[in-house]
Amino acid sequence: MSTGFFGDIGEIKYEGPESANPLAFRFYNPDEIVMGKRLEDHLRFSVAYWHSFAWEGGDPFGGRTFERPWYSDTMEAAKLKADVAFEMFTALGVPFYCFHDADVRPEGANFAENTRNLNEIVDYLAEKQQATGIKLLWGTANLFSHRRYMSGAATNPDPDVFAFAAATVKTCMDATRMLGGANYVLWGGREGYETLLNTDLKREDAQMGRFLNMVVEYKHNSGFEGTILIEPKPQEPTKHQYDYDVATVFGFLKRHGLEDEVKVNIEQGHAILAGHSFEHELALANALGIFGSIDMNRNDYQSGWDTDQFPNNVPEMALAYYEVLKGGGFKTGGTNFDAKLRRQSIEPGDLLIAHIGGMDCCARGLKAAAKMLEDGALSSIVEERYSGWSSEEAQKMLSGGYTLEEIARHVDESGINPQPKSGRQELLENIVNRYV
Amino acid sequence: MSTGFFGDIGEIKYEGPESANPLAFRFYNPDEIVMGKRLEDHLRFSVAYWHSFAWEGGDPFGGRTFERPWYSDTMEAAKLKADVAFEMFTALGVPFYCFHDADVRPEGANFAENTRNLNEIVDYLAEKQQATGIKLLWGTANLFSHRRYMSGAATNPDPDVFAFAAATVKTCMDATRMLGGANYVLWGGREGYETLLNTDLKREDAQMGRFLNMVVEYKHNSGFEGTILIEPKPQEPTKHQYDYDVATVFGFLKRHGLEDEVKVNIEQGHAILAGHSFEHELALANALGIFGSIDMNRNDYQSGWDTDQFPNNVPEMALAYYEVLKGGGFKTGGTNFDAKLRRQSIEPGDLLIAHIGGMDCCARGLKAAAKMLEDGALSSIVEERYSGWSSEEAQKMLSGGYTLEEIARHVDESGINPQPKSGRQELLENIVNRYV
Amino acid sequence: MSTGFFGDIGEIKYEGPESANPLAFRFYNPDEIVMGKRLEDHLRFSVAYWHSFAWEGGDPFGGRTFERPWYSDTMEAAKLKADVAFEMFTALGVPFYCFHDADVRPEGANFAENTRNLNEIVDYLAEKQQATGIKLLWGTANLFSHRRYMSGAATNPDPDVFAFAAATVKTCMDATRMLGGANYVLWGGREGYETLLNTDLKREDAQMGRFLNMVVEYKHNSGFEGTILIEPKPQEPTKHQYDYDVATVFGFLKRHGLEDEVKVNIEQGHAILAGHSFEHELALANALGIFGSIDMNRNDYQSGWDTDQFPNNVPEMALAYYEVLKGGGFKTGGTNFDAKLRRQSIEPGDLLIAHIGGMDCCARGLKAAAKMLEDGALSSIVEERYSGWSSEEAQKMLSGGYTLEEIARHVDESGINPQPKSGRQELLENIVNRYV
Amino acid sequence: MSTGFFGDIGEIKYEGPESANPLAFRFYNPDEIVMGKRLEDHLRFSVAYWHSFAWEGGDPFGGRTFERPWYSDTMEAAKLKADVAFEMFTALGVPFYCFHDADVRPEGANFAENTRNLNEIVDYLAEKQQATGIKLLWGTANLFSHRRYMSGAATNPDPDVFAFAAATVKTCMDATRMLGGANYVLWGGREGYETLLNTDLKREDAQMGRFLNMVVEYKHNSGFEGTILIEPKPQEPTKHQYDYDVATVFGFLKRHGLEDEVKVNIEQGHAILAGHSFEHELALANALGIFGSIDMNRNDYQSGWDTDQFPNNVPEMALAYYEVLKGGGFKTGGTNFDAKLRRQSIEPGDLLIAHIGGMDCCARGLKAAAKMLEDGALSSIVEERYSGWSSEEAQKMLSGGYTLEEIARHVDESGINPQPKSGRQELLENIVNRYV
Repeated sequence: MSTGFFGDIGEIKYEGPESANPLAFRFYNPDEIVMGKRLEDHLRFSVAYWHSFAWEGGDPFGGRTFERPWYSDTMEAAKLKADVAFEMFTALGVPFYCFHDADVRPEGANFAENTRNLNEIVDYLAEKQQATGIKLLWGTANLFSHRRYMSGAATNPDPDVFAFAAATVKTCMDATRMLGGANYVLWGGREGYETLLNTDLKREDAQMGRFLNMVVEYKHNSGFEGTILIEPKPQEPTKHQYDYDVATVFGFLKRHGLEDEVKVNIEQGHAILAGHSFEHELALANALGIFGSIDMNRNDYQSGWDTDQFPNNVPEMALAYYEVLKGGGFKTGGTNFDAKLRRQSIEPGDLLIAHIGGMDCCARGLKAAAKMLEDGALSSIVEERYSGWSSEEAQKMLSGGYTLEEIARHVDESGINPQPKSGRQELLENIVNRYV
Repeated sequence: MSTGFFGDIGEIKYEGPESANPLAFRFYNPDEIVMGKRLEDHLRFSVAYWHSFAWEGGDPFGGRTFERPWYSDTMEAAKLKADVAFEMFTALGVPFYCFHDADVRPEGANFAENTRNLNEIVDYLAEKQQATGIKLLWGTANLFSHRRYMSGAATNPDPDVFAFAAATVKTCMDATRMLGGANYVLWGGREGYETLLNTDLKREDAQMGRFLNMVVEYKHNSGFEGTILIEPKPQEPTKHQYDYDVATVFGFLKRHGLEDEVKVNIEQGHAILAGHSFEHELALANALGIFGSIDMNRNDYQSGWDTDQFPNNVPEMALAYYEVLKGGGFKTGGTNFDAKLRRQSIEPGDLLIAHIGGMDCCARGLKAAAKMLEDGALSSIVEERYSGWSSEEAQKMLSGGYTLEEIARHVDESGINPQPKSGRQELLENIVNRYV
Repeated sequence: MSTGFFGDIGEIKYEGPESANPLAFRFYNPDEIVMGKRLEDHLRFSVAYWHSFAWEGGDPFGGRTFERPWYSDTMEAAKLKADVAFEMFTALGVPFYCFHDADVRPEGANFAENTRNLNEIVDYLAEKQQATGIKLLWGTANLFSHRRYMSGAATNPDPDVFAFAAATVKTCMDATRMLGGANYVLWGGREGYETLLNTDLKREDAQMGRFLNMVVEYKHNSGFEGTILIEPKPQEPTKHQYDYDVATVFGFLKRHGLEDEVKVNIEQGHAILAGHSFEHELALANALGIFGSIDMNRNDYQSGWDTDQFPNNVPEMALAYYEVLKGGGFKTGGTNFDAKLRRQSIEPGDLLIAHIGGMDCCARGLKAAAKMLEDGALSSIVEERYSGWSSEEAQKMLSGGYTLEEIARHVDESGINPQPKSGRQELLENIVNRYV
Repeated sequence: MSTGFFGDIGEIKYEGPESANPLAFRFYNPDEIVMGKRLEDHLRFSVAYWHSFAWEGGDPFGGRTFERPWYSDTMEAAKLKADVAFEMFTALGVPFYCFHDADVRPEGANFAENTRNLNEIVDYLAEKQQATGIKLLWGTANLFSHRRYMSGAATNPDPDVFAFAAATVKTCMDATRMLGGANYVLWGGREGYETLLNTDLKREDAQMGRFLNMVVEYKHNSGFEGTILIEPKPQEPTKHQYDYDVATVFGFLKRHGLEDEVKVNIEQGHAILAGHSFEHELALANALGIFGSIDMNRNDYQSGWDTDQFPNNVPEMALAYYEVLKGGGFKTGGTNFDAKLRRQSIEPGDLLIAHIGGMDCCARGLKAAAKMLEDGALSSIVEERYSGWSSEEAQKMLSGGYTLEEIARHVDESGINPQPKSGRQELLENIVNRYV
């Protein structure tokens, strides 16, 4: 029985590129075969519970703009919210969703109550999953909204907060496992500092390292088979966050012996805030062997905070999926829309339209990326560019066969005087534009 | 015999805070004892050859504004430049200087000529050092200005460029060793990319890792006793540089097994461009055990390129030296002014005045930092903030004595419900203002 | 009778630079005479009601951290809030405060209720002012928090919102007049757009122009003798705000014939977000004849949102007050702390300490600025720099006495070949450091 | 007779979207009729002499990378450069080009020599124009590269520099007039400051105002029929430039009575550096009645300097041309590629490929924009959004028929309580994606 929140929608259908129906897909045809795989299985779309169902439209200068019937902190409201959420997932035909504990359950007065509330709603969500076939891409614990976390969770100066956070993660990992989640994510929104003046970086690094090690140990002990993911972000809410970007997270994992256990969940907006392109973070994670999943959205390049907009620039998205596909595509990860409506988009229909547009752009981007990859027009230029390194001498130099002195002697004696070759950037950019 | 470039200057003297003499120090008294050590030995000032003697005042929209008698690419001019440089070092009373090969020698037509030119000028510089007692803080190779390096040095797609760069580093390490340099620096200004479209991140990482390993091996084989330093910078000249920031460099070193062999040379302006405060990068390098040296300057926070201005904001500088002193101060490193005149400051006297101001601000900042450290007003608040972690239980939790499940059970059973405590940021900032 | 909120504080006293008492002024001695005027009369300090008493410590990722006994939307709570506010104003010895209607009164269900609530609290505030001698620097209407304003107030596509906003401003101007306010401020936090796609710039400009003209007309008709001020800000909450910066506001005023009627209230953080230094905005407003007042705070240069921190960098503040003093100092304006505690600073005492630190830094900055101005060391160099323009010929050229052709002929015939002169930036920066 | 620089190219032809020929247009078909006009007449493409023929590939960290046979400062080389330039213009089929004096003539020792050199090359260019039918979109004077301009041209503290600049502009306006230029542009690259400490804003504004007035007077006196254009840019090379953005320029024009005489030449990269989207600046210029022409390029959103890349993001470009077309399209203005090759793109062919890609993207963007405009899917939503303002009451309110008091009374009495309506941003963005 429908809640009626979205009116009489039914299923959003694929109608092809020429459709002007705002409630139809123009590019996302889940069953289309791309590089030998269904588009749905490539993209592995997921909706974020928090933005679409928990966020109320407020910003630092204004309060709630949305009006939703589930805006009250009761179990009944939580269930109504779940009903509407699954109606939307079903209408959109997304195979996955994601949540924080705080998105799905009422806030309790203490840990025990939080746990009870979470368990109750988990049962309800399990039924919904069962009924619809929709699965959990990942679960996570909200360790940043409650005032107890204002100075960090794992990195809090108070060990009781560390303990409270650890206990909470345990319950959220349990919930994720019970719901068959494919991954478990940690975003350290308060793991960082407001001012170095009151902060001991070394201590906090040790705390965070121990925390993550416990998470990994518990994953193995509890039989959770999903992937543990860290989501990098450079700042906001805090001035500086420890999981700054992919490179920083890699160093952290390596320092704590976790580089084979933990991967990254990369968000477009967070990449941008760290001064990187989205595709850079994706390519780097692949190069370092820690790519896990993506939080798809779009940050206004000119707003210095996390704008979490629905993605809409296909050429940019094609470059992102190009890196995803080059790395072999998603394994346990997927494309989660960590995107929220603009706060002026107050109608229920806006929620559908935003996701439809986002999914369509992703489909269009991925299809373009697949074509680029299959055609090899880009990759052949790159291979040719590095082809000098395939000589025996070059390989020997690279693999440690020569010392600095030997190379210097060789350069001196052979009179090596290398001439630059064009990087052909404009040509490559033009080639990309043949596909997007 | 003086070149007369600076007119009749003599030695810049310390005249105390009340002096209005633009050619005197007001805070830098080299022999003043701070925390048991001479101020000169704390600060270990160094002048950068490139900005002060090789740069001609050009910018992307205009050419040379300075007029210096040594602006021609001959050995004679190189020697005149060295004469004037040492006159300035002597007048300022700085104990150190730094250079790239390209700053001190004429550009040759090939590697052999470059090497000959470098060796000739090294002999000349050695005499100057001998005569004045001024020492070399570090040497480095310019692997970014010549067009052969336009697509990288160690990370070039052409192995011949890799070889040429390696050979050049060898000669520069030799020069540094011969001049008794305390460190050898690598700044990878072209180790990065303009576009991911033509770039293979994994290959280039392997190239860069091998290159640095060769450098470290050669250090040991050649008997060079200085420290090898990497200088992080996020971008500019390239869109993305691999040595992005301290955290990124740490990950790179760890990946290539070099974290005990190589340290970092941190530049204020580069920290800013990477989205960090200078003190963050310093504190992080100390926490990770890789702090080496600093390139002191100031970047305009609102100009998105490397402005390399002389530092002048004492409160900020005090926070930087506070981190340096907390980490135990400089070992082989020092305070190198990687700062250039504004291009409108075309008089020889401007060069002196800029360094005098910079040195004075550093002295003032370091003295304030030392006082903060000795008084302990800041550190006692920080210690108190983390004091909960000194309990036996907390230590056990941190050192791996509990699993996630055990902590969760404990939180559940004890009803732990931590209350937030004030972070006291404003109080700490007010305390800092008592010292600056 | 004290509310006891701050415990037993009494009046914050001036104890001189050597004091280590966190609850004393070290530089702000209200009666000190600077350039012939009491320091209090120079600085004209004001506390912002919103940050200190209405803001609850939330941010986009977390809720309320503060616990204040007045956090409920009743008239009784509003009065308790006023009691505590005036206790703090009195303790600090600030002569002024500022508020939005929404800060001081409970939110009503409609315009009539809002007006009644406002009138009731205005009476209460009037008594408080009477009892303490504290005055109102400026009042303003909050036209951005309520969801009715989500798409703008004066620039809303719905004329009813325009009308509602106009009516609200009328009541707030009345309140300000009744409380003897020295100014009335308009900050257009939602006067801008989220996307150009749904926006008609020309219409919205016309709406905003008419709105401001009505405000000015009402000022004259109602007998309000204060100054009307616009507060520029480039973005946040919206993607683009129309009152972007001082230069933009000037163009707007000029376009609508209001440049002699309206001045600007310049905020440090807003200047920074617009890509300007604070002193730039101040100097420009003075040059254009529209300088009014300042909102003193500090924006983290590296956080892309409005951080509204308490100011603490004295050298920067000295440059700001230097521009204020050069322009003749405040007339109806003053130094309003548009600054909020960090959300981790949850103790009542943090509120005092933050203001004490801010006031002290302002005092220190203004005294340094006054000294710079009186000594003339900076200004004499500037005058000398432009001295060529005082020749008769140059004046004639400037005042329209020559055409382009005549000048070209003159340059050609006289062979004018101007030589650049040093801009002496480093010298000027060193001079500033003699005062700060 | 061909110089052979580009080898054997011939004319670049339109081959349609399916072509994979890198030397063919896929979207730019000059004769295609769009909204009743030839595509060529819509776009009015122009090539920038400076980037394509005068720039040598240097950046702040490295020298020339290109090798061009005309790199020497002689009249012969200048003519060879012109020969090659016109070969490229012809091959591309662009109807226009643009230049600074310094791009086309050798630098002379003084004003007279500069003028003679300019006149000589102008004759040569006139012949080329005659022979090819290619026209001059605009001319301009380089008042920023020579060291005499290091502290500004019109705003220089030295009146002799003002005079020299004025004389130079006169000769460049003459050259532009003689070559039938459609516009004359002023970009004030050094009209700004490095430090406020040595700057008198008011004086410099007066100087700049007088300068521009002379230019306008000379336009009328000399019979030049083109449009005078100012090109805004916020900073770089200087820390702050006076022609910051469109809004700032408007204020300046208004202040000096020139708003009906001068229009703006808007560059994508400059808009970005000022914190605006390109389409914002275009829409604003249209709303203010000062839109003139565009400098098409692309700035890396994450590089803080002017990257001047060839444009390649069609969705963004479509939004830009949408604003151009909404305003009625170009009059005397056009689409000038103020874009340069990446410095690694050292082959002659890269120059062609870059322009082909840029022209194709512009064509594709403009055609999408025209379709959006013709369909009216976007504009009908915007009109509907503001439709409330067409009521008689609303119009009266807007046109000054009511006072603030009257409106307040009305709101009070009618109980107006406006309800927000969805801004429909995601829907609008999805609609755009139907066209791009």
